[in-house]
Amino acid sequence: MNEFDLIARLTGALPTDASVVAGVGDDCAVLEVGLPDRWLLFKTDAVVEGVHFTLSANPEQIGHKALARALSDIAAMAGTPTHALITLALPEKFDVAFVEGIYRGMNSLAARRSVSIVGGETTTNPDRILLSIALLGWVAKDKCVRRVGAKVGDAIFVTGELGGSLAGKHLEFEPRLDEARWLARNFSIHSMMDLSDGLAGDLRHILKASGVGADLLATAIPISHTAKLSAREKSAAKPPLLAALTDGEDFELLFTVASADAVLLLDAWKKEFPKLKLSCVGKITSGTGVTLRDHRGPRPLNVQGYTHFA
Amino acid sequence: MNEFDLIARLTGALPTDASVVAGVGDDCAVLEVGLPDRWLLFKTDAVVEGVHFTLSANPEQIGHKALARALSDIAAMAGTPTHALITLALPEKFDVAFVEGIYRGMNSLAARRSVSIVGGETTTNPDRILLSIALLGWVAKDKCVRRVGAKVGDAIFVTGELGGSLAGKHLEFEPRLDEARWLARNFSIHSMMDLSDGLAGDLRHILKASGVGADLLATAIPISHTAKLSAREKSAAKPPLLAALTDGEDFELLFTVASADAVLLLDAWKKEFPKLKLSCVGKITSGTGVTLRDHRGPRPLNVQGYTHFA
Repeated sequence: MNEFDLIARLTGALPTDASVVAGVGDDCAVLEVGLPDRWLLFKTDAVVEGVHFTLSANPEQIGHKALARALSDIAAMAGTPTHALITLALPEKFDVAFVEGIYRGMNSLAARRSVSIVGGETTTNPDRILLSIALLGWVAKDKCVRRVGAKVGDAIFVTGELGGSLAGKHLEFEPRLDEARWLARNFSIHSMMDLSDGLAGDLRHILKASGVGADLLATAIPISHTAKLSAREKSAAKPPLLAALTDGEDFELLFTVASADAVLLLDAWKKEFPKLKLSCVGKITSGTGVTLRDHRGPRPLNVQGYTHFA
Repeated sequence: MNEFDLIARLTGALPTDASVVAGVGDDCAVLEVGLPDRWLLFKTDAVVEGVHFTLSANPEQIGHKALARALSDIAAMAGTPTHALITLALPEKFDVAFVEGIYRGMNSLAARRSVSIVGGETTTNPDRILLSIALLGWVAKDKCVRRVGAKVGDAIFVTGELGGSLAGKHLEFEPRLDEARWLARNFSIHSMMDLSDGLAGDLRHILKASGVGADLLATAIPISHTAKLSAREKSAAKPPLLAALTDGEDFELLFTVASADAVLLLDAWKKEFPKLKLSCVGKITSGTGVTLRDHRGPRPLNVQGYTHFA
């Protein structure tokens, strides 16, 4: 049973109520709290030593990553983060300087993004460090972008470059908060999420929520320099395209807009964010699942990537 | 370095802003969100296998405890809980039925208290189960009770009976949500918190926040039947009074009111909550720290309890 199956099984019968605009299955919970113009966003995200980071990382990077992951989920809905609580679970013997470094990394990012850290707790996790962030934010009701909403014919975009994040980017990435808000302010974004598990898998969440399929164009996928380099230098490495589709931890934005808006959006993006690549990687179809097209034609893409031709 | 020292050190330089009514150092963060009558309450609490529960507990109790602890913090401010996110960190091999039992315990309590579970995540914690709850709630601005506010001469009250919680109560306790709201609605409660680490230690948080001291009357401390029984049956057990002062995990309310209100409050309480004991255990003084008085006179009480006379 994988994570998604387990969550589906556990959350099938959860108590809910009318204040819940979006709950399980979106990047954040979206809550109606009685304000005319805004919804409250609510999100938690945890990183675990040996799973999401190792002690060879510098502690500032660990703190940065923990908060940045949660911020990326607020970005995915075009929201603005405001308040965080930190849960820090530590072995009984810990290095105070290391823990202070983790906090420095979090505080620095929080200050830069105007997020108030309003408390939290330390508790004991005897075998390893676990760091969980609970985050609040706001989103304008008419600018909130969800996973549901992709329409047949939509152009599919991704920001940045994909693959090879574990070589370093996963500890240093900047959540795409400004970019997501700019998109929602200036265009009718039909659906959006952040890429955490790889394009091949994550795109399925938008497709499932929206009841559509997708065609991806292999040559349009923006492959990171790291993924290309790794494929050249290590014989055991994934082919670069496969790395870009499945490596995960990209924390870029994945979104869809009407194809009529696509060129205008690309032009405006280049002026607004000249340093950050934006790529149209395919289109939404009336099918199911994801198809990958290259010079040899279309083939089905699953969560683990494509099947190699013999 | 203990938990309180570490939190103080880590949170000394946290970024904050004008929307934060109360942050680090209260039972919940209290946030101004632009509603005329209400503040938002925000809290996280984690329980860890081998620290807060063992696998010999039934899974429903573990789920109940995890959520009840967070609810108890909302109760401590006379608030009403509304929405929760669940972080479930699990070893890679886990018993699905056990995890479903944990969720059943949480869902049952959430439904009974009208709390919507709006999502969360599962992640890997290779060595043990860790369960963290992020909780939102509301409190009327004119009814919010904090740790700060105790005044010299106040009567100090505790609900229920103290000590011996680890024998079973810690897995089954009911957060005092109704009782706390009733108190705030009907009386001017000067300060309040929930008892998680034991009266001897927890009372200090109110004293420190309020800049006052306290005299406790030993004979007035409500000692649980379990603590008395344990002291009788096990030669190594704590004396019952010491257990009531230091065992922790009581999850009862500790609050102070003007002494002029004390008798009226006790009478009204008996009518409203005839099954739940309410005890006046002492008074707030202009001193510092906690003094315990018994038939042998006053003696200082520290976090670990009192010093035995030779």
